[in-house]
Amino acid sequence: MPLPERFDAGLYFIGHIETPWRDRAACPRNARESDAVCTVVVDPRWAAALAGVETCSHLLVLYWMHEARRDLVVQVPRRHGTARGTFALRSPVRPNPVAASVVRLVGLEGTRLSVVGLDCLNGTPLVDIKPYFASTDAVAGAVVGWHATPER
Amino acid sequence: MPLPERFDAGLYFIGHIETPWRDRAACPRNARESDAVCTVVVDPRWAAALAGVETCSHLLVLYWMHEARRDLVVQVPRRHGTARGTFALRSPVRPNPVAASVVRLVGLEGTRLSVVGLDCLNGTPLVDIKPYFASTDAVAGAVVGWHATPER
Repeated sequence: MPLPERFDAGLYFIGHIETPWRDRAACPRNARESDAVCTVVVDPRWAAALAGVETCSHLLVLYWMHEARRDLVVQVPRRHGTARGTFALRSPVRPNPVAASVVRLVGLEGTRLSVVGLDCLNGTPLVDIKPYFASTDAVAGAVVGWHATPER
Repeated sequence: MPLPERFDAGLYFIGHIETPWRDRAACPRNARESDAVCTVVVDPRWAAALAGVETCSHLLVLYWMHEARRDLVVQVPRRHGTARGTFALRSPVRPNPVAASVVRLVGLEGTRLSVVGLDCLNGTPLVDIKPYFASTDAVAGAVVGWHATPER
């Protein structure tokens, strides 16, 4: 699938993420498979933007899956053998490899946030940190049909 | 706050979002304030990536808040009079103005998705569509302390 010839917008990496996982094969399959404490490190340039973050129990962290190719529109997920569209998957491989993970904040020291709930490579670039609002972000009854149905 | 001199990564706009709101003042304060049906329009280039999306009850939509400035690290939220750090807010104004909204999928025709749960401007560029997994994305008990505490 040929990618567009040029980008439409630019991102700044605002920091990076420190995790125990040094290659993709070692990463957990999803963020609930590990309770490892990871560290979200914000560049000093943005330190003032963290004021108030300490009052949040959970955060939505956006990061850049820098090792992922961007040109696949259909993929076969690791444990479900049927090909699916990229937008029906949480695979890192997508046109814009921006991941969104809900993390639990367990500590904040200066510009270093200790969190539980990440599954990415050590050194992953950080794109954004947002407060997680249960009122708008939590939908307990949501269903992903293809995933809920066992493969034959 | 001076921004970095260059970008670290590039985004492709993969489509756009059609909403009833033509200027920022008209937008709902958050996505649960309106039950308007909006349309997420995916560019034909990515049509195949939608296979399987129709089985999802809810999606996580990432989009680009193209009218937002990017240089504020501290802001006063509209209805809470105290200044907070950008990363403690869901304001569109942030170093990387990528919004993340949980939407309910109510229809899919070709590359047009009808959804409920957006609060953005008409014409907002689309960055990504992901399946919403309650198992990892829903945290009903999450608290944003500064928001839960009434202003004096």
